[in-house]
Amino acid sequence: MFTDHYELTMLEASLKSGAAHRRSVFEVFARRLAEGRRYGVVAGTGRLLEGLSAFRFRSEELDFLADHRVVGDETLQWLADFRFSGNIYGYAEGEAFFPYSPLLQIESTFAEACILETYLLSVLNYDSAVASAASRMTSAANGRPCVEMGSRRINEESAVAAARAAAIAGFTATSNLAAGLRYGVHTVGTAAHSFTLLHDSEREAFEAQVAALGRDTTLLVDTFAVEAGVRTAVEVAGTELRNVRLDSGDLVEQAHWVRSLLDDLGNRQTGIMVTSDLDEYAIAHLQSAPVDSYGVGTRLVTGSGAPTASMVYKLVSRQDGAGKWTDVAKASSGKASVGGRKSASRQLNASGQATAELIGVNRPAGADADDRPLQHTFMQDGELMPGWTGPEAVIRAADRHRASRAELPAAVRRLQPGEPVIPTVFADE
Amino acid sequence: MFTDHYELTMLEASLKSGAAHRRSVFEVFARRLAEGRRYGVVAGTGRLLEGLSAFRFRSEELDFLADHRVVGDETLQWLADFRFSGNIYGYAEGEAFFPYSPLLQIESTFAEACILETYLLSVLNYDSAVASAASRMTSAANGRPCVEMGSRRINEESAVAAARAAAIAGFTATSNLAAGLRYGVHTVGTAAHSFTLLHDSEREAFEAQVAALGRDTTLLVDTFAVEAGVRTAVEVAGTELRNVRLDSGDLVEQAHWVRSLLDDLGNRQTGIMVTSDLDEYAIAHLQSAPVDSYGVGTRLVTGSGAPTASMVYKLVSRQDGAGKWTDVAKASSGKASVGGRKSASRQLNASGQATAELIGVNRPAGADADDRPLQHTFMQDGELMPGWTGPEAVIRAADRHRASRAELPAAVRRLQPGEPVIPTVFADE
Repeated sequence: MFTDHYELTMLEASLKSGAAHRRSVFEVFARRLAEGRRYGVVAGTGRLLEGLSAFRFRSEELDFLADHRVVGDETLQWLADFRFSGNIYGYAEGEAFFPYSPLLQIESTFAEACILETYLLSVLNYDSAVASAASRMTSAANGRPCVEMGSRRINEESAVAAARAAAIAGFTATSNLAAGLRYGVHTVGTAAHSFTLLHDSEREAFEAQVAALGRDTTLLVDTFAVEAGVRTAVEVAGTELRNVRLDSGDLVEQAHWVRSLLDDLGNRQTGIMVTSDLDEYAIAHLQSAPVDSYGVGTRLVTGSGAPTASMVYKLVSRQDGAGKWTDVAKASSGKASVGGRKSASRQLNASGQATAELIGVNRPAGADADDRPLQHTFMQDGELMPGWTGPEAVIRAADRHRASRAELPAAVRRLQPGEPVIPTVFADE
Repeated sequence: MFTDHYELTMLEASLKSGAAHRRSVFEVFARRLAEGRRYGVVAGTGRLLEGLSAFRFRSEELDFLADHRVVGDETLQWLADFRFSGNIYGYAEGEAFFPYSPLLQIESTFAEACILETYLLSVLNYDSAVASAASRMTSAANGRPCVEMGSRRINEESAVAAARAAAIAGFTATSNLAAGLRYGVHTVGTAAHSFTLLHDSEREAFEAQVAALGRDTTLLVDTFAVEAGVRTAVEVAGTELRNVRLDSGDLVEQAHWVRSLLDDLGNRQTGIMVTSDLDEYAIAHLQSAPVDSYGVGTRLVTGSGAPTASMVYKLVSRQDGAGKWTDVAKASSGKASVGGRKSASRQLNASGQATAELIGVNRPAGADADDRPLQHTFMQDGELMPGWTGPEAVIRAADRHRASRAELPAAVRRLQPGEPVIPTVFADE
């Protein structure tokens, strides 16, 4: 039922007209990247493939549709029997993408593809928005670990998806336990200000934390006064204290003197974690400071200003009444689309660096043997291909993302607004 | 498991230190409204109360926590037995809110309140962000119906929450079927461009739609050329056609000539629905055009630039080891909080217009008999009070929102950035 009303009214009307059974190809793509972004990052594919296997209409849902006269008996019966039986191709998770990259292709009857529109777009639009922002953050952090801590800032299920998407884009851990359970993302966490305030003194709170979690923990030192907090932390936990966390104030300035203070106290091994409304720009600013890890929340899970990836789902080809394939496209002002089934390759130069996103219409893209094909088969005749789902898919996607980003021109690291780092070239142009 | 790792490590440490059993009061509030906003709108409370009754730790989750050594045996046993047994007070859904409004209070042991932090904030932050944006849109639309159509732009579960939050803030319908099923929100929908493109001509598509759905439907007329689309729509559906929908181009200019064309064709009763990246500013701009309803997507479900409501969850008071209540607050730079249990009333003048958000610390706010108390009891000793959940709560919240917004000064309708429309006044100042 992650479905828009109009998908079922279209289904109803096309079942009546008979057109529902025409074979069709729908494509997911974004006409543009988020404003000023150099690249996007695909995420959500594994999650949507997992969800498709559970995409059914149960009796309570069918009763609702019947009671509200959304559709008639023939359509209800079709929905009761629904199980996706088509083919799905597309970009692998973690891959960089550009305007018009054909991120997903659904090949099935119109009816089957039609009712998946909202679900597929919901998953890809949100997860890719987070992964695209997350990649800029890990790029800015340049090897320093980034931890996802934004669950509380966004819908509870979005939070799990965000933790997964961030892991694909290079975050090393999350605070979100459900993401650990479902997707194997490494989870971390220590204590909030409330834990310090619960106790009769900061010292008692630190003692309680160290007694329970050991010295390999992170003590939050800014509840009252940072300098006293750091001194108390070291007194309680000794030189083996893993981290102190700073969550307020001028983090650059604090990181410098807290580092000196820790060193003076003999805690050269104790790291400094910073949190507090970080985004890629704040991380870049903090790179000059002696910070060991970043905890990122709000700006990550809301896509750092771009909370959706602007992906759309368009019918690009379908059979006519006689079974002949016809390419289709709308001509709507400012929203015209390109008909025909797309193929995509990343054009690489002799040093293996990407130079263009090549898109072919009804023919292979990328004439050169070095060009890297971008589309994979995820589902064939309704059967899931192995390797694209579950925790292992997240690990593979994170590896793929590292490689895909490394292959792009150096301008990929620039945070300031600009054009996509490689152009999208339609091969028939 | 909509829980952050650190909530369980705090639980573990406080169970060990014994402080976990101290009675505590946590409060949810926002230090500021989204930038330039005049007011916020509470949403999500009903949804979180529904979720709390299912907030348990199941065996697969406990196994995960044990396998990953997140917590030890004592804590696992505590989690296995967990059922929230405290009290919850707060603002009703649909109510306007302002900086520091005490939107929710959780009174329980530290342990019970501690593990709810992420879940409560996730629900309130997202739902209130959407409701706050939605209210500005319905305010701008000034009585013209607004329909929520953003499901595809945001995580699939966020989409359902967004449809519910929009309904609370005055949207008349949603495209999202799950919101219809779960919360009784009225659902609507007709057809996408793909439906037109599926058929061999626009005329065949319109004929198929009208044959299946009748003339009381909305025909999408911009797939190819709008004028021809309107003429075909009228030829196919006649004067009883309910609506045409415009989804691209200059909507103001189109609405004017499409209205004239419809009138000339004898379709004075046929309405014009517009969609296409609308937000409160676009709606305000379109108010001068002959538009009958607005379909709003991306900008609604992403909070129109403010995708989270910046709410935080803070310990404000707790018992000490001897059972004596102590107010607590952190002093963190730029993030200081106010200790003590808050009460809240909306101060009203003789004409019933709101003049201030009154907040009392450890005493009632609002000395005047006309001041309207803002806090309700949602849960007592773990038992849900009637009337705050389910579809009827959404209807009541929408009524409440209309009344709450009408009570605010006229500047509440201004879309340009500014200060909150009433000040927040701490009664002990």
